[in-house]
Amino acid sequence: MALQLDVVLTKEKKEKPDFTQLGFGQHFTDHMFIMDYSAEKGWYDPRIVPYAPVTLDPAAMVFHYGQAVFEGLKAYRTKDNRILLFRPEKNMQRLNTSNERISIPPVDEAFLLDALQKLIEVDQEWVPSAPGTSLYIRPFVFSTEPYLGVRASHSYKLLIILSPVGAYYGDGMKPVKIHVENKYVRAVRGGTGNAKTAGNYAASLKAQNEAKDLGYEQVLWLDGVEGKYIEEVGAMNVFFKVNGEIWTPALNGSILDGVTRNSVLQLLRHWGLPVYEKRISMEELYEAYTRGELEEVFGTGTAAVISPVGELSWNGNQLRIHEQQVGELTMKLYETLTGIQYGEVEDPFGWTVQVN
Amino acid sequence: MALQLDVVLTKEKKEKPDFTQLGFGQHFTDHMFIMDYSAEKGWYDPRIVPYAPVTLDPAAMVFHYGQAVFEGLKAYRTKDNRILLFRPEKNMQRLNTSNERISIPPVDEAFLLDALQKLIEVDQEWVPSAPGTSLYIRPFVFSTEPYLGVRASHSYKLLIILSPVGAYYGDGMKPVKIHVENKYVRAVRGGTGNAKTAGNYAASLKAQNEAKDLGYEQVLWLDGVEGKYIEEVGAMNVFFKVNGEIWTPALNGSILDGVTRNSVLQLLRHWGLPVYEKRISMEELYEAYTRGELEEVFGTGTAAVISPVGELSWNGNQLRIHEQQVGELTMKLYETLTGIQYGEVEDPFGWTVQVN
Ligand SMILES: Cc1ncc(COP(=O)(O)O)c(C=O)c1O
Ligand SMILES: Cc1ncc(COP(=O)(O)O)c(C=O)c1O
Repeated sequence: MALQLDVVLTKEKKEKPDFTQLGFGQHFTDHMFIMDYSAEKGWYDPRIVPYAPVTLDPAAMVFHYGQAVFEGLKAYRTKDNRILLFRPEKNMQRLNTSNERISIPPVDEAFLLDALQKLIEVDQEWVPSAPGTSLYIRPFVFSTEPYLGVRASHSYKLLIILSPVGAYYGDGMKPVKIHVENKYVRAVRGGTGNAKTAGNYAASLKAQNEAKDLGYEQVLWLDGVEGKYIEEVGAMNVFFKVNGEIWTPALNGSILDGVTRNSVLQLLRHWGLPVYEKRISMEELYEAYTRGELEEVFGTGTAAVISPVGELSWNGNQLRIHEQQVGELTMKLYETLTGIQYGEVEDPFGWTVQVN
Repeated sequence: MALQLDVVLTKEKKEKPDFTQLGFGQHFTDHMFIMDYSAEKGWYDPRIVPYAPVTLDPAAMVFHYGQAVFEGLKAYRTKDNRILLFRPEKNMQRLNTSNERISIPPVDEAFLLDALQKLIEVDQEWVPSAPGTSLYIRPFVFSTEPYLGVRASHSYKLLIILSPVGAYYGDGMKPVKIHVENKYVRAVRGGTGNAKTAGNYAASLKAQNEAKDLGYEQVLWLDGVEGKYIEEVGAMNVFFKVNGEIWTPALNGSILDGVTRNSVLQLLRHWGLPVYEKRISMEELYEAYTRGELEEVFGTGTAAVISPVGELSWNGNQLRIHEQQVGELTMKLYETLTGIQYGEVEDPFGWTVQVN
């Protein structure tokens, strides 16, 4: 039986926040999408309703055994007032990858993407228009059954909430300082690293705080087995330009398959540049640095799109990259990707999807 | 300022479930304990109130970044109608260990233990009396701030809920069949294995399901680094009796410091038996098995207390233990520990705490 989307509009629209002071993930729109899952009915009752709290039994399994996954993508307003999504089908696919890893039942990706488009249409006034601003989209799923036995829940909720967000680079792109983490581990082979599970983020906070205390903005995660190989930077994938080549850690099961990472790889190949997805040790990178061959470093992710790295601190060594200035390739990727996202640059791959 | 516990009693008591058919973690008592945390006030407003749902903003951080930890302990009714807790201060300590690992602010352990005792007093009718039954106690903490940036939440809730539970061994102790897990990893050095974080349990479900499909009740987890060394079994610590010696994996950071494990170690030493906390490889264990020296295997945890293992399946080898019967030491530990918990056996260590 096909799911039927129900729409209940709010009687009282919220006052909009100051769209020049949005920040990230603090303001939420008038409506949300929600649907429920039960073992008997499967996913049911999909609806767009006024943004409202959720009420849960204290025994709801999400509080205890953490079955929760999420996605993050954005809607962009173009100069000619269209609203574009960037490769949203990738996020729906990844949601199911995450679901699968922690035993949450799969969702109908096409249906969910339709529902998302409808939700954005309903709340289209909330898609900001100032340069660099966007509507952040957060689909998420969590377990709800009130039961304390350790097993997969028999009931879930899936929501999509929307948050207008400010420009990531308010005062221009600035390279960040990164601490190469040698104590904590984000993910390991056989674990949940390639899924966007809530627990992965809780586990990462302490390292992040300790790095902040040392004066670094983010951590660079090394592999959990040998503590040698580069995985990700903060909640971003990471790229290195080494002597004209571009390297990024291969997807090995403990790294998230980022949509931005995938798009950067396609662009670089399209431009005919030599790109390698491979295992990269910190040692090897340091050697390249000492030979003067570490030319650029940047993170990739939906929030920042491209985030230049100006310094890596590793076991007492400070690797200063590109004189702590934004590199040319870093900038070109940023401009091309954001150009495509805002409909200002040709989209040779058909990545954008227009919301009606 | 000292916290003041407020008590609001229910106007309408629930109908009690059939105390001969309790199962685990399905029924909840009339009241719960709850307190809140904010960055400004610290932990505040501790109260015992009627058991009721919690209402959260959909952006509440627990749904997204999974800052959630829990504890599990039990209250036991003695034949002379006293109510005993077993080493509850250990659970309060461990709650703070878990909090610390995922950047949740610490709680006042002594205050929380007092509040727990008061809660049990209020709901004392719910402590069942049939042999083997008990009142399962679930303290838990989760993040509540409605914010989508990845950082530690600035607000939390801590609850304690109570659930009367049936005898774990309804029809007698039966050794379980265990699958030695060689694909999935529960925890790794530098991760969250020694904390009771919600995410650890979500991550474990898939392996558990796959083992069930193969006909095994639980998995035995190997270390995340080399995939060689024994860590835990299901959500229990694990012990081996090998040629008269008792071995258990040493606390290495990725293993939970179980209260039952600690108690078993103390009892064994008290009895003058040779006990070793050490790194144990599956290989070494298999060799002991082939020499006929693997005498008993059992798991330890609050739910089952002692859980005999009758079979280990490892890389195609079936290790049958003690002819799939409960071993003498396994049984003696079970009887001594449950004897102490129910106030029927002398408590030389002062482990039990009476609820007034
Ligand atoms: C751990 C992690 N790695 C990488 C990424 C980048 O993925 P994407 O480019 O799809 O946003 C994210 C953010 O979504 C993330 O949370
Ligand atoms: C992962 C894990 N290991 C071990 C244990 C046993 O700990 P305890 O004896 O304190 O119940 C538990 C259960 O609490 C657990 O969840």
